[in-house]
Amino acid sequence: MTVLGLGPMGRALTHALLRAGHPTTVWNRTAGKADTLTAQGAVLAKTAAEAVAASPLIIICVLDYDAVRAILDPLGGHMKGRILVNLTTGTPERARQMAEWAAENNIGGYLDGAIMTPTTTIGHNSAIIHYSGPEDIYMAHKDTLSSLGGTAVHLGTDIGRAAAYDVVLLDIFWTFMSGYIHALALAKAENIDARELASHAQGIIGILPDIMSAIADQVDEECYPGDESNLVSAAAGMEHIIQAALAHGLDTSVLASANAIARRAINAGYGTDSYARLVETTRHSAVRPG
Amino acid sequence: MTVLGLGPMGRALTHALLRAGHPTTVWNRTAGKADTLTAQGAVLAKTAAEAVAASPLIIICVLDYDAVRAILDPLGGHMKGRILVNLTTGTPERARQMAEWAAENNIGGYLDGAIMTPTTTIGHNSAIIHYSGPEDIYMAHKDTLSSLGGTAVHLGTDIGRAAAYDVVLLDIFWTFMSGYIHALALAKAENIDARELASHAQGIIGILPDIMSAIADQVDEECYPGDESNLVSAAAGMEHIIQAALAHGLDTSVLASANAIARRAINAGYGTDSYARLVETTRHSAVRPG
Repeated sequence: MTVLGLGPMGRALTHALLRAGHPTTVWNRTAGKADTLTAQGAVLAKTAAEAVAASPLIIICVLDYDAVRAILDPLGGHMKGRILVNLTTGTPERARQMAEWAAENNIGGYLDGAIMTPTTTIGHNSAIIHYSGPEDIYMAHKDTLSSLGGTAVHLGTDIGRAAAYDVVLLDIFWTFMSGYIHALALAKAENIDARELASHAQGIIGILPDIMSAIADQVDEECYPGDESNLVSAAAGMEHIIQAALAHGLDTSVLASANAIARRAINAGYGTDSYARLVETTRHSAVRPG
Repeated sequence: MTVLGLGPMGRALTHALLRAGHPTTVWNRTAGKADTLTAQGAVLAKTAAEAVAASPLIIICVLDYDAVRAILDPLGGHMKGRILVNLTTGTPERARQMAEWAAENNIGGYLDGAIMTPTTTIGHNSAIIHYSGPEDIYMAHKDTLSSLGGTAVHLGTDIGRAAAYDVVLLDIFWTFMSGYIHALALAKAENIDARELASHAQGIIGILPDIMSAIADQVDEECYPGDESNLVSAAAGMEHIIQAALAHGLDTSVLASANAIARRAINAGYGTDSYARLVETTRHSAVRPG
């Protein structure tokens, strides 16, 4: 194989391929990152064109899609017939544009992938890597790709699906993180240690999966009964928190934005619906803040 | 005992007391909510003053602290020597004001509490109720209060502590919920069913407790090494998500607010610190959006 890009993730991918016994050629935009890899048998190509010429299967994992295009655009002709597996993080939109580029340049096959777990998991059972794109291409290279990690999942033929899952799961992750950080700041203001809060907060993590299932059912059925708790009580709850945070001079912009969405739904007459109703409010927003 | 307030939670508390064999007097601002309770042996008081006169231990659980004050302020003299347990949801600030009121009115003792679990758990093992206030008062009434639920926790003598924990844990909960709702909206726009997303998203819940502990350690030590991931990569990650959401015309105000805090820290020179640094940025905010 060939691996383009030797950042922390590119190096982890190369190590995993070498450990699995695959002859691997590597290339990076800047030199000097390949020493530990060449010591383990990787071949360092002098140019990207040379790297691409060395193998039928090209794995690229760089900073973003702009970096992917900066490397691959000048190589169009050299990529003909090659299989390209792009593990760079990006949006479904960019993945689809990349598939168009692959078709225009007569590439042998294009898979878009998303690495869901840290570099330390790569090559081990705990790794999760999602792929999307043509099923025949995925099946033909499944065994090689399985060297990269424990769980390789083909999410479907829509080339944007791996990136879509990536972006959706990271949406949950980063919003959760912003709430946890805010809670730690509020806790500090109330003289509660972070470690003390963490042990209580880890407890409430346990109640989330059931709530997530119940909300998902309502969303798929487009039916939002608010018998147990409704948007009016949710908004009142959020306003309590905002008041407590403002009393300590904290930034409250994140929860105020969430509350504004709930208030918009309440003003539109959905106050006695459940919180799951807000999926509709988020989708049919008149406002598009940047 | 006496229970003031017969909303869903007040009724659940009364049921639990009656089941545990405690003679219980009840009162509600509006009539007609006590039928199932009086059928089980509760005594319905005609006025709040009569209800308060009936028992040494008064439990109040109403909509908010304004409602608490509307009921108790006219009763000042009648409350002398009584023990007041306030399970109404509110801020630490309001709990402290309530304690001042209790002292001014020569109340026998004041405990502030927060019910962390739904009405259906009350009286059962799965209930979690936090208390704060004088330890001797808590210990003297611990057995009675244990009738209300499985886990009764005395968080300390700071009267605001139960409300502080309540508000901090709900901060995590509601921010998480807003992220999950947004992710469901983004998933729908990418033709991913809510139930399909939920099963993958429940998987990432499992990685959160370790991350929460690591962040709590950094926050307590006020030391934010960004070796594994830093604010620059976090902000770039959030911007990917925002772009993907904007491409579908979704509201992005929540994550944009979270990203703005990260950008503020990066602009202040903390780009290579970990995400935990944002606890400081949130606490020392120049901006106070309402």
